Amino acid sequence: MGEQNQNKQGRGRLTIPTDLDVVGETLKTMELWGADAVRDADGTTFPQELAECGAKVYATYYTTRKDNNWAKANPDEVQQCYISTKFVPATGAELSIRLLEGISEDLLQVNNRDDIYRWWEVIDRTTGEVVPTNLWSYDEASGCVMITNTTPYHEYSVSFLTYLIWDPVHMYNAVVNDWKDFERQITFDVRQPKTREYSKGRLREFLRDKPYVNVVRFTTFFHQFTLIFDELRREKYVDWYGYSASVSPYILEQFEREVGYKFRPEYIIDEGYYNNQYRIPSKQYLDFMAFQRREVAGLAKELVDITHEEGREAMMFLGDHFIGTEPYMDEFKTIGLDAVVGSVGNGSTLRLISDIPGVKYTEGRFLPYFFPDTFHPGGNPTAEAQENWLTARRAILRKPVDRIGYGGYLKLALDFPDFVDYVTQVADEFRDLYEKARTKPMCLAKVAVLNCWGKMRSWGCHMVHHALYQKQNYSYAGIIEILSGAPFDVSFISFDDIREQPQLLKDIDVIINVGDADTAHTGGDNWKDPYIVEQIRAFIAGGGGFIGVGEPSAVQHQGRFFQLGDALGVELERGFTLGYDKYNWDEKPSHFITADMNGDINFGEGKKNVYATSADILACKDKEVQFAVNNYFGGRSVYIGGLPYSAENARLLHRAILWSCSKDHELHNWFSSDAHTEIHVYPETGTYCVVNNTAEPRNTTVYANGKSFELELKGGELRWFDM
Amino acid sequence: MGEQNQNKQGRGRLTIPTDLDVVGETLKTMELWGADAVRDADGTTFPQELAECGAKVYATYYTTRKDNNWAKANPDEVQQCYISTKFVPATGAELSIRLLEGISEDLLQVNNRDDIYRWWEVIDRTTGEVVPTNLWSYDEASGCVMITNTTPYHEYSVSFLTYLIWDPVHMYNAVVNDWKDFERQITFDVRQPKTREYSKGRLREFLRDKPYVNVVRFTTFFHQFTLIFDELRREKYVDWYGYSASVSPYILEQFEREVGYKFRPEYIIDEGYYNNQYRIPSKQYLDFMAFQRREVAGLAKELVDITHEEGREAMMFLGDHFIGTEPYMDEFKTIGLDAVVGSVGNGSTLRLISDIPGVKYTEGRFLPYFFPDTFHPGGNPTAEAQENWLTARRAILRKPVDRIGYGGYLKLALDFPDFVDYVTQVADEFRDLYEKARTKPMCLAKVAVLNCWGKMRSWGCHMVHHALYQKQNYSYAGIIEILSGAPFDVSFISFDDIREQPQLLKDIDVIINVGDADTAHTGGDNWKDPYIVEQIRAFIAGGGGFIGVGEPSAVQHQGRFFQLGDALGVELERGFTLGYDKYNWDEKPSHFITADMNGDINFGEGKKNVYATSADILACKDKEVQFAVNNYFGGRSVYIGGLPYSAENARLLHRAILWSCSKDHELHNWFSSDAHTEIHVYPETGTYCVVNNTAEPRNTTVYANGKSFELELKGGELRWFDM
Repeated sequence: MGEQNQNKQGRGRLTIPTDLDVVGETLKTMELWGADAVRDADGTTFPQELAECGAKVYATYYTTRKDNNWAKANPDEVQQCYISTKFVPATGAELSIRLLEGISEDLLQVNNRDDIYRWWEVIDRTTGEVVPTNLWSYDEASGCVMITNTTPYHEYSVSFLTYLIWDPVHMYNAVVNDWKDFERQITFDVRQPKTREYSKGRLREFLRDKPYVNVVRFTTFFHQFTLIFDELRREKYVDWYGYSASVSPYILEQFEREVGYKFRPEYIIDEGYYNNQYRIPSKQYLDFMAFQRREVAGLAKELVDITHEEGREAMMFLGDHFIGTEPYMDEFKTIGLDAVVGSVGNGSTLRLISDIPGVKYTEGRFLPYFFPDTFHPGGNPTAEAQENWLTARRAILRKPVDRIGYGGYLKLALDFPDFVDYVTQVADEFRDLYEKARTKPMCLAKVAVLNCWGKMRSWGCHMVHHALYQKQNYSYAGIIEILSGAPFDVSFISFDDIREQPQLLKDIDVIINVGDADTAHTGGDNWKDPYIVEQIRAFIAGGGGFIGVGEPSAVQHQGRFFQLGDALGVELERGFTLGYDKYNWDEKPSHFITADMNGDINFGEGKKNVYATSADILACKDKEVQFAVNNYFGGRSVYIGGLPYSAENARLLHRAILWSCSKDHELHNWFSSDAHTEIHVYPETGTYCVVNNTAEPRNTTVYANGKSFELELKGGELRWFDM
Repeated sequence: MGEQNQNKQGRGRLTIPTDLDVVGETLKTMELWGADAVRDADGTTFPQELAECGAKVYATYYTTRKDNNWAKANPDEVQQCYISTKFVPATGAELSIRLLEGISEDLLQVNNRDDIYRWWEVIDRTTGEVVPTNLWSYDEASGCVMITNTTPYHEYSVSFLTYLIWDPVHMYNAVVNDWKDFERQITFDVRQPKTREYSKGRLREFLRDKPYVNVVRFTTFFHQFTLIFDELRREKYVDWYGYSASVSPYILEQFEREVGYKFRPEYIIDEGYYNNQYRIPSKQYLDFMAFQRREVAGLAKELVDITHEEGREAMMFLGDHFIGTEPYMDEFKTIGLDAVVGSVGNGSTLRLISDIPGVKYTEGRFLPYFFPDTFHPGGNPTAEAQENWLTARRAILRKPVDRIGYGGYLKLALDFPDFVDYVTQVADEFRDLYEKARTKPMCLAKVAVLNCWGKMRSWGCHMVHHALYQKQNYSYAGIIEILSGAPFDVSFISFDDIREQPQLLKDIDVIINVGDADTAHTGGDNWKDPYIVEQIRAFIAGGGGFIGVGEPSAVQHQGRFFQLGDALGVELERGFTLGYDKYNWDEKPSHFITADMNGDINFGEGKKNVYATSADILACKDKEVQFAVNNYFGGRSVYIGGLPYSAENARLLHRAILWSCSKDHELHNWFSSDAHTEIHVYPETGTYCVVNNTAEPRNTTVYANGKSFELELKGGELRWFDM
C-alpha cells in the first residue's frame, strides 16, 4: 500500500462518491470526513473540476459493457449464458418447448448462431437421458424446440446458449431506479479473440483519455455471476458465485482441449441447479472452474499490466463480473492487482474482502448506498449506517480492510446532517482502529470450517446472494457471521484438502461442519469415504473438537444418518430407528457452554427429529434435541440444531469452541462478561480493546491478562487499553 | 359364521374374560351384557364351573410357550432371534465387543451351539464390508467377540444368533404387572423338526384335556414380533411387524434351498434397522417374508386341521407370535382359520382386523383391558372405554368386526358400575349396528394408499408398535386413521402392484402417498423408475386425484426432490433452489377443501421448507407451505404437510379426496355439515345412519339423497334412518 493512503492527522483511508452536480459539496465532504479518494459509479460522471483536488481519483471501468458500438458490431462475441428451460411434460409423441418462457427477452437472446446440435442438449428429465439430436429441431420463428418420439409423461428440458443482450447489473440498476431514456448496455465477452484484442486497446484509450484517474476500478473482469430476470423483469435466479454466464463455444472448446474430454451443457446446467454452492461439485465443474481461474487470471493480468504501464493502480470490484477470479485461490495472486474493493453487508462479507491474500490493499464499501431507497424524507440512513458499522466492526477488529468507502449519490446524503456526522465519527474511528488493529490479533483456537469448497468459498459459504437473508440458511450462515468477528484463527478446508494434506488436521483445534444433508456444506457422500471418517474420528479422539450444526456428516449409510453420530452422540430420526426406545431426554441443568445464557436459546429454524444417543443434552424442545455435547475418547463434540447470528449465540459458539477443544479453562484469560461486548487483543502492539457491539450503553466485567475490572461503555463505544 | 353367534333378543357377539375367582360374577355379567363367550387370558385360569354355562368357551393356547419341560429338554429348538451389537469403534488393531451389552440377559442367550462362523457376521460399519471369519473369535467366558486387524476409527458390529430364553410378551406382562413367584416361559420354535412333531401332539392333548373348550385362541403360531428389553428390563426395541425372531439355522437352510442363494445375517440385521417398515424392503427380505408366509401357513394349517378334527374352532390372535401369518396375503386363507381376534386401539387397528379376508368371523378386543393401570381407585375406565368405542365405531360402520370382547380381570371391572353400564350400552349398540351395517356401505370414491408394502401392511402402515403414538409419524398415521372410518373404498397398493398389474390404476379414483423421503411409505428410488412416474402422471392427467402428504414421491433425482412436483405444484427447498426467486406465497382466500374450516388447521409436525411452484396455496405458515392444490391436465393434486387424526382433519381429507378426483360437486349427496358427525349409507338395506363421534351433543345439517334436514344428536348418539 502506498504512503499516500496512510492516516495523516485524521485524514485518509476513505473514498467517497461524487458526480457532476456536487463538486463543491464533494470538496467540503472530503474535508469533513477526511476522504482521500473520490469515485464515480454506474449512472454518475466524474467532474473534471475534481481532477486536481489532491485526492486519489477512482474510475469505474466496465470491462464488459458501456461500449454498445463494439457489441453491436460483433454480435458473435456478445457474452453468452447457459440456461435451461423449465421441465415440460410430454403427453404424446411430440412436444414443443418455448425456450424463453418465463425469461426476460430484454436480457437474453437465444444463440442459434453457434451449432445448436453441438452446444444445446435436450434431456429427458424423467430418465436423465440425452435426446438424440435427430429427434429435435429449433424453430426460430416461434422460439420453440420441437421434440419428436417423446415418451408420454416424461418431462423434457432444453439446455441452450443465450446472448446477454443487456448487462444484468445494468438492467437491475435501471429497473430498480426506474431509469428513463438510456441505452441498454450489452455485455461482450472479453475472452473471445476479437474482443480480447479490442479490449486491451480500449482500456489503454480509456486511461489515456482520463489522465487524472489514479485507480482503475475494474467492474469487474469478464463474467457476470448468474443473474436472470423473468418476463416481468423480476429477479428470477441469482447465484453470486454462479458460472453459467461465463461460457461460449470458443471458451468451451479450449476447455475440452485442456481437460481431454468432451464438454456437455449439463456440466453447467446441472439439472437446473446450475452448480450452486449447495450442490456437491462434480469433477467436471471443478475442472471447469479450475480452467476458468487460470484463463481469467491470465487475461486479467494483461489488463492489469496495461493499467500499470499507464501508471495507474488496478482495483478489482468483488462482485458483478468477478466470476473466475476466485480471490482465495492461487491463480488470483498472479493477476497482479493492487487492490480489491467490495460491498460490506455484514461481518462475513467484510472478511470476504479483508482476508483476500495477494493484493496491496482492500477496501470495503459500506452501507447504506446513497440511493433514494434509504435517503428519502422519513428515511433513517444513520440507523442503517450504525448497524452496518457495528456489525462489520467486529470483523474489522479481526482483520481490517485497509480502506472504507461509500457509494451512490453524494447529494442525497448531504440532506441528512446526522448521517454526515455519523460518518465523520466512523471515519475517525476506522482510521484510529486501523492503526491499532492491523497486527494479528490473539486467536484462542484454530477453527476450520469443513465443506466441499474449502478456501474457495472462504466466508462466502452459505451465501446465495451477497449477504441476503434466506430462511433456509440464516441458521447456518450465523455460524460464519459469528466467526467473522470472533477471536479464532478461522480457515476453510475441503474434504479434498484432508485427502491431499495428511498433516492438515494436526494444526487445527476445532472442526465445524454446518448445513443440511446432501449439500456441499456438510459433504454428502464424502462421509462414506472411510479415509475421511478415520481422519476426523482420530482428530477428535486425539483431543480435537468437532462442532456439527444442522445435519453434520449426514448421509444415509450403514446404519447411520449422521456418520459422526458416534462422536456427536446424536442421531436424526428418519423413521428407521422409531423401533428403538429412547430414554435420554433430560437437559443438563448447567454446562460451561450455556453458562452465560438467560432464557431460551434462539436456534433459528433449528432441526427437527434429532435425539441423543450418548450425548448430554443442553437444550431439547418438544422432544427434539437442539444442543448437545459428547465426549469421544480424548476429544469432545458439540451438536447444534442451528445458530443464527446474535450476540448471545456468538457467545455460545465462543464457549462451544473452547469447550470442544478442552480450552474451557482458558476462558477467563481474555473475556468480557457481557455478550454484547467483546474483547480483542493485539500482542504485537501490546494493546487490547473492549468494544460495545450495540447502540446502547453496556456494563461488563473485563478479564484481561489475569486481572478483571468493571467497565461501562457508551453505545457503540470501542475503548483501547494497554496490556 | 355359525348361527349361534347371531343376535337373539339382545344377546351374543360379545366375549368376556373370566377367572377362577369370579364364577358367579361371570354368569351375572354374561346376562347383563348379553355375552355369549367367555375366555381366559395370560395369568388367568378358566373355571370348570363355567364349562356348561351355555356360552362358547375360548381357551388361549400358547403354541410357543407354557411348556418349559419341553423347552428345557430341547434347548437346540428354543426360538432364536438375530440381533446386532451396537457399533463399536476400534482405536487400534484389535477390538473386543461384548455381545449382550445393553441387552437383557433374562431375555436372550447367545447361541454358539450353531456354527458361529456360518451364522454370525462381523461387519466393518464404516465400509460395510464383512470381516473375514479368520479375523475374529468368540470368547464364551467373557461373552465377547475379539476382532483382529481392525482399522483404527472404523466402527464394527457383530450380528449374532440368540435364544429367546424368556418369551418377550410373558416377560413384558411379568415386568409390567410385577409378577412374583413364577417360572419364566421359554419360547420354543415350532418350526423345527422335534418341536414340530411334538407340538401337534401337545395341541391334541390340550384339546382332549379340555373338552369344554369351543374355540382355541392361538397366541399365536410360531414367531414373536421383535421385542427386546435392555439390561434394566426396559423395552429396548420393538417392531410389531418385525421378523428378526423368526429365524434359526434350520429354517434358514430351507430358505437358502428355496431361493437358491446364500443367506446372510445382514438380510435380517439390515444395518441394525431390522427391516422395519420404514425401510424400503430389499429383495432378500421380500424373499424371506414370502418364504416364511408359505412355511408358516403350511404348518399353521396342520394345527388348525387338528383343532377341527377335535371339533373346535381355530381363532388366531393378531399379535404376539403372529409373524409370518400376514393376514392380507394369499397364503393366509390356506390356513383354514375360523376367526381372527385382535386388540382395537383405534379405527386403523379395527380395520386391520375387520378387513382380513378368508376367515369366518373377526373379533375385536376393546380397551381398556381390565388391568390395574386403569381400574384403580380414582381411575376413569368409562372415559377410556367411550373414547375407544367412539374412535373404533367410525371404522366399524365401514366394515364391522363380527364380535367384540374385553380382556383382563373381570373382578376389577365390576368395581366400576358406570363402566359396567357403559359396556351394556356398547354391547347393545354394537349388536344393533352390526345387523344394520354389515352390508357394504356406500363409497364415494376408490382411494389407494401407495407405498412399498401394499396390501401386506393394510391399515398397519405407519404403525411401529400397535396403535402407539410416535412423534415422527402421527402426522402421517392420521391419514390412515381418517380413512379407517371414511366413506371411501380404501385399498393399499405397492409400486410392484403397479408394475405387475397394468390395469390397476384404472379402477382407482385417488392415490395417496404419505410419509417421509427415503422410506418405504413414500417409495424412495421407486420414483426414479420411469414406468412408475409415467403411470402415475398419466393417471392424474386422465382425471385421477393424487394426494401427497409429507414428502410424497421424494427422491433427489434429475432436478427434483418431489418427483411428482409437476403434478403437486410444490417442491421442498433443500438448498439447491435457493437461487430461484419465489413469488407464490399468498393463500387462496377460500377453497372447496377448506370450506368447513374455522381457524388454523392442525398439520401436526407439518413439513418444513416446502414452497409452491404452480400450486394454489391453501395454508402457508412462516413461508412454509402446508396445504396446496394443483391442476395437472385433466386431474388434480393436493399437497398436505401432515394431517394428524381429528374430526376437522377427517373432514379436510374427505373434501380433498372428492376435490382431487373432481367429485366435489357430489359432496352434498350424502353429507353432515358438522365435522364431528358423520353419515354412513347402506344401499343394500336402504338405511343410513348419522353418528356423533363425540361425547357431547352436536347439531348438524344432514344432506341425504337430495334432501336436507337439521338434526340434534346426543353425545355419542348413532341415529338410523331409512333412505
